[in-house]
Amino acid sequence: MTRRVDEILSWYEGDDAQTLSNLRRMLEQGRTGGTGKLVVLPVDQGFEHGPGRSFAANPAGYDPRYHARLALDAGCSAHALPLGAARVVAPEYAEDLPLILKCNNADGLYVGDDPEPAVVAGVEEALALRCAAVGFTIYPGSAHRNEMYQQLRALARDAEAAGLPLVVWSYPRGSGVSQEGRTAVDVVAYAAHLACQLGAHVVKVKPPSEHIESQAARVALVKAGVPLATLADRVRHVVQSAFDGHRIVIFSGGAAKETAAVLEENRQTAMGGGFGTIMGRNSFQRPHDEAVHLLNNVMDIHLAQVPVG
Amino acid sequence: MTRRVDEILSWYEGDDAQTLSNLRRMLEQGRTGGTGKLVVLPVDQGFEHGPGRSFAANPAGYDPRYHARLALDAGCSAHALPLGAARVVAPEYAEDLPLILKCNNADGLYVGDDPEPAVVAGVEEALALRCAAVGFTIYPGSAHRNEMYQQLRALARDAEAAGLPLVVWSYPRGSGVSQEGRTAVDVVAYAAHLACQLGAHVVKVKPPSEHIESQAARVALVKAGVPLATLADRVRHVVQSAFDGHRIVIFSGGAAKETAAVLEENRQTAMGGGFGTIMGRNSFQRPHDEAVHLLNNVMDIHLAQVPVG
Amino acid sequence: MTRRVDEILSWYEGDDAQTLSNLRRMLEQGRTGGTGKLVVLPVDQGFEHGPGRSFAANPAGYDPRYHARLALDAGCSAHALPLGAARVVAPEYAEDLPLILKCNNADGLYVGDDPEPAVVAGVEEALALRCAAVGFTIYPGSAHRNEMYQQLRALARDAEAAGLPLVVWSYPRGSGVSQEGRTAVDVVAYAAHLACQLGAHVVKVKPPSEHIESQAARVALVKAGVPLATLADRVRHVVQSAFDGHRIVIFSGGAAKETAAVLEENRQTAMGGGFGTIMGRNSFQRPHDEAVHLLNNVMDIHLAQVPVG
Amino acid sequence: MTRRVDEILSWYEGDDAQTLSNLRRMLEQGRTGGTGKLVVLPVDQGFEHGPGRSFAANPAGYDPRYHARLALDAGCSAHALPLGAARVVAPEYAEDLPLILKCNNADGLYVGDDPEPAVVAGVEEALALRCAAVGFTIYPGSAHRNEMYQQLRALARDAEAAGLPLVVWSYPRGSGVSQEGRTAVDVVAYAAHLACQLGAHVVKVKPPSEHIESQAARVALVKAGVPLATLADRVRHVVQSAFDGHRIVIFSGGAAKETAAVLEENRQTAMGGGFGTIMGRNSFQRPHDEAVHLLNNVMDIHLAQVPVG
Amino acid sequence: MTRRVDEILSWYEGDDAQTLSNLRRMLEQGRTGGTGKLVVLPVDQGFEHGPGRSFAANPAGYDPRYHARLALDAGCSAHALPLGAARVVAPEYAEDLPLILKCNNADGLYVGDDPEPAVVAGVEEALALRCAAVGFTIYPGSAHRNEMYQQLRALARDAEAAGLPLVVWSYPRGSGVSQEGRTAVDVVAYAAHLACQLGAHVVKVKPPSEHIESQAARVALVKAGVPLATLADRVRHVVQSAFDGHRIVIFSGGAAKETAAVLEENRQTAMGGGFGTIMGRNSFQRPHDEAVHLLNNVMDIHLAQVPVG
Repeated sequence: MTRRVDEILSWYEGDDAQTLSNLRRMLEQGRTGGTGKLVVLPVDQGFEHGPGRSFAANPAGYDPRYHARLALDAGCSAHALPLGAARVVAPEYAEDLPLILKCNNADGLYVGDDPEPAVVAGVEEALALRCAAVGFTIYPGSAHRNEMYQQLRALARDAEAAGLPLVVWSYPRGSGVSQEGRTAVDVVAYAAHLACQLGAHVVKVKPPSEHIESQAARVALVKAGVPLATLADRVRHVVQSAFDGHRIVIFSGGAAKETAAVLEENRQTAMGGGFGTIMGRNSFQRPHDEAVHLLNNVMDIHLAQVPVG
Repeated sequence: MTRRVDEILSWYEGDDAQTLSNLRRMLEQGRTGGTGKLVVLPVDQGFEHGPGRSFAANPAGYDPRYHARLALDAGCSAHALPLGAARVVAPEYAEDLPLILKCNNADGLYVGDDPEPAVVAGVEEALALRCAAVGFTIYPGSAHRNEMYQQLRALARDAEAAGLPLVVWSYPRGSGVSQEGRTAVDVVAYAAHLACQLGAHVVKVKPPSEHIESQAARVALVKAGVPLATLADRVRHVVQSAFDGHRIVIFSGGAAKETAAVLEENRQTAMGGGFGTIMGRNSFQRPHDEAVHLLNNVMDIHLAQVPVG
Repeated sequence: MTRRVDEILSWYEGDDAQTLSNLRRMLEQGRTGGTGKLVVLPVDQGFEHGPGRSFAANPAGYDPRYHARLALDAGCSAHALPLGAARVVAPEYAEDLPLILKCNNADGLYVGDDPEPAVVAGVEEALALRCAAVGFTIYPGSAHRNEMYQQLRALARDAEAAGLPLVVWSYPRGSGVSQEGRTAVDVVAYAAHLACQLGAHVVKVKPPSEHIESQAARVALVKAGVPLATLADRVRHVVQSAFDGHRIVIFSGGAAKETAAVLEENRQTAMGGGFGTIMGRNSFQRPHDEAVHLLNNVMDIHLAQVPVG
Repeated sequence: MTRRVDEILSWYEGDDAQTLSNLRRMLEQGRTGGTGKLVVLPVDQGFEHGPGRSFAANPAGYDPRYHARLALDAGCSAHALPLGAARVVAPEYAEDLPLILKCNNADGLYVGDDPEPAVVAGVEEALALRCAAVGFTIYPGSAHRNEMYQQLRALARDAEAAGLPLVVWSYPRGSGVSQEGRTAVDVVAYAAHLACQLGAHVVKVKPPSEHIESQAARVALVKAGVPLATLADRVRHVVQSAFDGHRIVIFSGGAAKETAAVLEENRQTAMGGGFGTIMGRNSFQRPHDEAVHLLNNVMDIHLAQVPVG
Repeated sequence: MTRRVDEILSWYEGDDAQTLSNLRRMLEQGRTGGTGKLVVLPVDQGFEHGPGRSFAANPAGYDPRYHARLALDAGCSAHALPLGAARVVAPEYAEDLPLILKCNNADGLYVGDDPEPAVVAGVEEALALRCAAVGFTIYPGSAHRNEMYQQLRALARDAEAAGLPLVVWSYPRGSGVSQEGRTAVDVVAYAAHLACQLGAHVVKVKPPSEHIESQAARVALVKAGVPLATLADRVRHVVQSAFDGHRIVIFSGGAAKETAAVLEENRQTAMGGGFGTIMGRNSFQRPHDEAVHLLNNVMDIHLAQVPVG
């Protein structure tokens, strides 16, 4: 089974031993360990949307340690979190659970047309907190995208020197893309490609819709006969856009929704060759056992689609 | 009694000995020493509002040393002040009174829609002046919030290296929040959460009003049945938003007001689980003995609400 | 007599020996030496207003060395000047005359609503030119004030490390204050207070007018019954705003005017507790001997108001 | 034959041995090796235009390694590519194929009036990936040109210290030039000259059109009787503008077009003294063997115009 | 005759031996060597106006080496040029001809209301290329002037450490001055003064016109009876504004014009006490021998006005 992990790691042969070791750690953690699938629990919604909106539904979540415990209980691959939470969580959990330090975040108390997160942590803090990786959000389509790309480059250099893999949230947003275009299949594929070109080891994007934002992309895709009818088709295009599938691409769930919808979405992304999911509100806003149950169901779906090594 | 202090310090287990020692120093200082309660005297109003508006009512206050003496006489936990004042005060008082060097400030001679304080001091100066902590103001809701968050990160890194705790004034303000929203309960809770995520050891916010600024927050809070009717209720929500109460949150008094109002406000914040108060104009604009008396009454209120260890 | 100098220096006890030695040098220089009074000759008008407007009236002034000679002949405490002039003057005069290197300046060929000087020198140059102090202008009220405060902080840190006192020109100006408000008594007091909070050893402000710019300040000053009728009264309020008189505050003369007006202005500032004057155009645009005579008369006025030690 | 390479390298006599060695490596690589001609395969279109538009026509191109293989198979002089692709390609190909690390790029998800690429790699990464040169795009005519020139200067200094030649894409674009002016002969010549003045070893421009953008340039060119009727004439003017032909100038092909048009364009640039071509979409969007065939035909055209040494 | 050079160097007594040695080198170079007069050949017009406009009239000038040869043939004091050209020229000419590396430049493909050149070289490059001085342009009157002044300060510090004199092109331009005001006598005098205050060893300005831009300057100049009727008068005022003639001020020729006009302009600037000229297009756009002849005639004019030592 670990042959799949070795195969995946071979795509990153330019990376040093420490980075590969941290990447391997996430790939071998939890219930999907060894299969090349990743199910990550991200909790930065307190920062991004506010504490009440994020945790009032399940008040246990006000305590950052709850999420680390949940990730362990459910057998997740890793847990992504901002600096303050990491300072609470790391002393107890950093050894048993791979932590991804989210290094930039945007809060919802000021919302402009062109989002730009603040860089509030970095490799130095990640090392001190014994994290397994660093995370960073880019918003292609924002007038401020270049600042983000350049901050990402600086982070990537520091991360490389420290042997930490780089997980990139690539979310098109801002005055360069329409509201519908944020999840358009060509835009999501583009976002995944950009993250790869910028040095990401793991890319997180949203499930792509049928919408095509760019006329030139539509012409090219139609001409080449690229199948885009089902979510699985579109996921396949996105994964292909990530260096022909040689980068780990996982899909996020977005706003909380019905269980059936969550499972179906994961079934499609798994069928399309997605490497897993990163699921926050849909898990931690449910009661603990229900969340573990859902996460396990999602893991089962992805495990059912492991490529034959 | 110091068991409460040990308990509080255990929430910061990621911090090094020097930082914890400085934090302990404030928690063991003055009349509330050892109880986990903090009553801080802040005097940066000369910088923020001008000298006449701040000190004409009690001209003794033109001399920075007056405030340090007042803080000692009243048994306060610490005294927060800007660089210039600290240079006057520190030689005589830094040993007996924990000083919090306020590292950024905004003056009232230019007021834009989106406030942005100037960073006018840092850890280097705090160490030279033998301060016990550094203080920093953020204005979530301002178009310039990201600059502040990033300046805060830099300060936090320097402070960590120097073993100085970080006290964050988190005051939503600017074009992202309405005038009424500055003290809305969801916004204050959000502000407290952000300060924690950004690495604050101690968070200072304003007493939250009944107003709810964000429709999404309102939906979540109502759905979850969070009690918000009294100030004590709302304080409880704010404290919960600060890592489920595992960060020290204190409340400021704002503009000078009647004694009865000050005491009632403190009674409510104490009942809601607040860790104390930071009270400037309401103390130093009164004559010395009256100020000491009021501060002592406020301390008594908070001491009456010390959790049973 | 030097007891007064010792007393003044005791206000700066946090400063190191080298800084105090340079401050003492200015306080013991020239005709007012040893009395705690300062009369400074500043010549940056060539930079600020242009050479013709500044020096055509007395063409000897085109040569920077003329001003240094004038300052010595008149028995001034120090001479403030920009970098280029300092490079001409320092080799010959730095030993006999305390030089204050003006580190930022604004020229009049571009005038915006919100002034912002360029930082064109610093401590490194001041040391190389053997200056006794560094000078810096801030414009509270300008949209760019924060940049200036932050540049000032950087200069202050360098200056402290090098043992150079900091002289701050604090001139409210820009879109945050009205034209009349630039010399309003509350605004000038605020400007002096800000300079002190930012670390100034010596503060230079304009003589305050009867105008009060801020309604809140007016209410506070009237309620407290602060006397503001005469210039001496207003100077007293400004000096009090500078840490209750524990910082050296000197007053500038502004545009060239009649001798009688100059003398009366100085009489009032001396009576109000001002520490002296910084007088440029009113001296160097007069012929040499007339300038020496006027400066000596001004010194006599200030010497007549030396506090009894 | 290598005498031509020696001659070319003599134009760069100020450069150190390592830089010259890398430049020589490109000049001796592949089918045009030793002739002074360069045919480069650039693949940053995934970043610039998106993956679908770039690779759907020939899906093998989703994998960065395909392009390196194509460049080798066709006997190209070098392969230019962004950071992420380089990390995939370098371990296997850096030794056999000179790689040019493209250090800045602009994506198409946000398009403003004045383009500004993000700097997403540099000399440090180029060295780690054993690249033979660094590449950088400037957009003269953009309001942000100065940032690019200054970033280029920083890159050039790093590159010089590391012994890496600098390849500059100089593409006039932005609010300073009209749409038609982007390929105007005077503008292209200006763009080539600017790149040389900024320190480029190799300059890449677009084939110049007959349009003349600047009236002053038209007057000067007409007065001097500069022949500009054919593309070959115009290429000659551009090459002359590059230090009288003492810098290597190559021409890009632009959007995919018919084979005959590609060949004719190359014939003209070769006749005009161009040093070769850099051809992306016209090659890699064709099937592999067709692409190799076309590249070989283009090489033959340039080889037919090698100056007699 | 070298007594004049010694006298001039005595004005810079604060400078170190290496700087003075480089300054002396220019003052002793060529046909005006030893007389205190400077005739400099500047060629950055390819960068500033484009190659065709600059060199089509005399195509030999496309090769940077032509200009160095011309400067030597004509007996010029120095040759000013941008980085790229300097890299071509320096290996062969840096020893025999003092080179002034022009460290910032603006190109004409983007022209805004407020010019701001790009800093594209510095002292590091100047040293590597064995230049005798560094050159820098400031545009007083531009909204971006402060950036230029601050960049100049940084350059000046580096130059001082390296022993390189600083040549400043001071050209008022931008939204702060009218079109006519760019050469107004008060403005040119102000520009020269600013350059001196910012640390220039040699100042280059344009010949001043009779226009007076500032009303306040007009009042002062008229009141003082400053003669401004002839160009010689106005040059005298400008030279006086440069520290009473204790800085080297040379005048540029501007756009190409008739020989008689060039000579008359030089006659006037020489009579007014100007130290020489910096003449680009009027020389290098003429055929070689004609250019040498003109330059020699200009030198003769300046030599005829050497002050009696």
